[in-house]
Amino acid sequence: MRAELIAIGSELLIPPRSETNGTFLTSRLRDIGIPVIARVIVADDLEALTQAFRNALARAEIVIATGGLGPTEDDLTREAAAAALGIGLQRDAGYLEALAARFSRYGRTMAKVNEKQADLFEGGAFLKNPRGSAPGQYVERGGRLLVLLPGPPVEMEPMFDSEVLALLRSRAGGRVLRRRVLKIASMSESDVEQAVAPVYKTFQNPQTTILGSPGQVELHLVAEAASESEAAERIESLATCLREALPTRIYSEDGRDLTQVVAELLVERGHVLALAESCTAGLLASRLASVPGASRFLDRGVVTYSNRAKVEMLGVDEALIARHGAVSEEVARAMAEGVRQRAGTAVGIGITGIAGPDGGTPEKPVGLVYVALAGSAGDRVRRAVFPGERDRVRFQASQLALEMLRRGLLGLAP
Amino acid sequence: MRAELIAIGSELLIPPRSETNGTFLTSRLRDIGIPVIARVIVADDLEALTQAFRNALARAEIVIATGGLGPTEDDLTREAAAAALGIGLQRDAGYLEALAARFSRYGRTMAKVNEKQADLFEGGAFLKNPRGSAPGQYVERGGRLLVLLPGPPVEMEPMFDSEVLALLRSRAGGRVLRRRVLKIASMSESDVEQAVAPVYKTFQNPQTTILGSPGQVELHLVAEAASESEAAERIESLATCLREALPTRIYSEDGRDLTQVVAELLVERGHVLALAESCTAGLLASRLASVPGASRFLDRGVVTYSNRAKVEMLGVDEALIARHGAVSEEVARAMAEGVRQRAGTAVGIGITGIAGPDGGTPEKPVGLVYVALAGSAGDRVRRAVFPGERDRVRFQASQLALEMLRRGLLGLAP
Repeated sequence: MRAELIAIGSELLIPPRSETNGTFLTSRLRDIGIPVIARVIVADDLEALTQAFRNALARAEIVIATGGLGPTEDDLTREAAAAALGIGLQRDAGYLEALAARFSRYGRTMAKVNEKQADLFEGGAFLKNPRGSAPGQYVERGGRLLVLLPGPPVEMEPMFDSEVLALLRSRAGGRVLRRRVLKIASMSESDVEQAVAPVYKTFQNPQTTILGSPGQVELHLVAEAASESEAAERIESLATCLREALPTRIYSEDGRDLTQVVAELLVERGHVLALAESCTAGLLASRLASVPGASRFLDRGVVTYSNRAKVEMLGVDEALIARHGAVSEEVARAMAEGVRQRAGTAVGIGITGIAGPDGGTPEKPVGLVYVALAGSAGDRVRRAVFPGERDRVRFQASQLALEMLRRGLLGLAP
Repeated sequence: MRAELIAIGSELLIPPRSETNGTFLTSRLRDIGIPVIARVIVADDLEALTQAFRNALARAEIVIATGGLGPTEDDLTREAAAAALGIGLQRDAGYLEALAARFSRYGRTMAKVNEKQADLFEGGAFLKNPRGSAPGQYVERGGRLLVLLPGPPVEMEPMFDSEVLALLRSRAGGRVLRRRVLKIASMSESDVEQAVAPVYKTFQNPQTTILGSPGQVELHLVAEAASESEAAERIESLATCLREALPTRIYSEDGRDLTQVVAELLVERGHVLALAESCTAGLLASRLASVPGASRFLDRGVVTYSNRAKVEMLGVDEALIARHGAVSEEVARAMAEGVRQRAGTAVGIGITGIAGPDGGTPEKPVGLVYVALAGSAGDRVRRAVFPGERDRVRFQASQLALEMLRRGLLGLAP
């Protein structure tokens, strides 16, 4: 069983407004195991709306629309949905009375235009709206459930939770969806794809989606099953195979990001860190410090942009810089060891590179980065050339440093 | 002429991910007078995708799709769009070579799966992607313009601005829309609103929208006119009034962000900077270093998380810390002056605060931050209590430091 969402209203298509009902509904539906296959935002236009309903009803068993239930001329949701279903609308006398009563309770007379809010699908039922004048409604037709909800979140959300959820649960027939995200750092999307495609393609359920961003790849596994335990088992059996296809490369299966994983390893093992950053210029320190309680594992960092700063603050030998250049394996090592010794911490990290856009040469192109680890997590150094512009190079360099640190702390090969 | 947007990717339908490309594109299209009539988010499913393209092409003259241009099996945008248009795809030999060259530049061999990124619509043309391996492309067919763009905003946005905008402008005809964004740092949205509402409400054209985020408020002015010069004139006359309503507070009217503005001021005046960060922990250094050529104005930074680091690296008096606490005006001043003297730079900045979630007391709550400026841009210190969680406090602290520095460099009152 799959759902499609339709958000209605020209105002949703005018910046800087954004559509938030879809995010709420997607999340709620996911909780009860109903995947959303499409979300549509459409203007108050009868033809476009009718078409949107037709498309949705053709491919999803559940269609939920939000908005366009008000009394004005551009509130066309009811009419469009009825046309798409090929059914009529009937003005409900009981609801009309209730509406009029609601108005008089606030000392107002109901305007004629409001009457259409009492229009109901043939064979449909209203969903009460204690917070506004627009009721929701739903109808079942040809194996499809169509639900109309008001647009304002303060009206829509309680209506969904108190009335629609039960409707959906009874139709979901007990199927359960489970999801797990496996995260990998410092590998390209295509390298990960090549390693895992032969594995995940042999599984129909769970389904796997690969998501790549600079320095990070995520494998999203979604299993569907008759019970929680069967779903969990399905996920685990695929995850086991993926771990074998990418030995030691999956750093998280529980939602934690790389900084959290590394921070917890540092605290667990009682290592304290000192950082010497050149091209990343505080990005690594800042990312680590975003973890609450970072003072337990981060003593200090230095951003040594100038060569003079490298010499003065880290004790890097001026002759070493002259011989190998500031962006070199040797200087990265000297930075890591220098900051570690001066801070008196267990672990030191040194990063030096060319973030661009200028400063590259044929031998040392833009994107070239050296990351060195010194101390109790091992003495290691790695060279990489990262693609992309300045901030992307810097992010990937910080990501490589975190992954090297994770591997070092766990005693894994570099 | 109307546009429809299609955002592609199953991951966009899985909370908590949200779709942001549509917001960017809607805004840009509105600037050139092209309304968006629908936005669709659709999963990586060939049939659903093909249908989405068919619907869009049936009702909009311009269809722009984002995402699904990667190398993996679930990247189906090209195939679906070609099917909806009823045209073929051809593997482009020239682009294939360029792709392979791109890989070898980074010392890697192109995987077989990447080859399909060179597939091009019959009669179509590529859109260059200097920031990633997935090119965009477009084709004109039966009075429709179909554009495919990559999903990552860092690739999509520059591609849109440098290549697609011109394509669209030539088709838009007639009316001209002009937009200007005025930026203000370290003022709350409601304070800005109070100052400027009486001004902008007297203007029907340009229209003004206020956009607030932590530490930053933006005023978006959009004028519509028959000519470029009339639109520019309308914008300028409102901007003049807004400058009077917010004297010295608008730091940018040309798209530059606060780090760029401050970086240019530093270079222009030949000041070099040294930073001492505690709660921001490298965030300020990292933000400044994201400006190309940062080595011209940034000598060094230190992240002094521990008190010991403050004493050893900045020469802050231990007794001062004991007397006033590490989060105090006195320590912020000592940090700024300490790093300035040790680095021998013109300007020093010190930041100390409580980012939370723990560590707050009734006298020194979470969110309390002191920022101090020392040296040639003036000796100044400011205290602030920022709302929000850890990263939000840290960002606002870095923003305050940049605004203080800007004001100091310009000789404005604190």
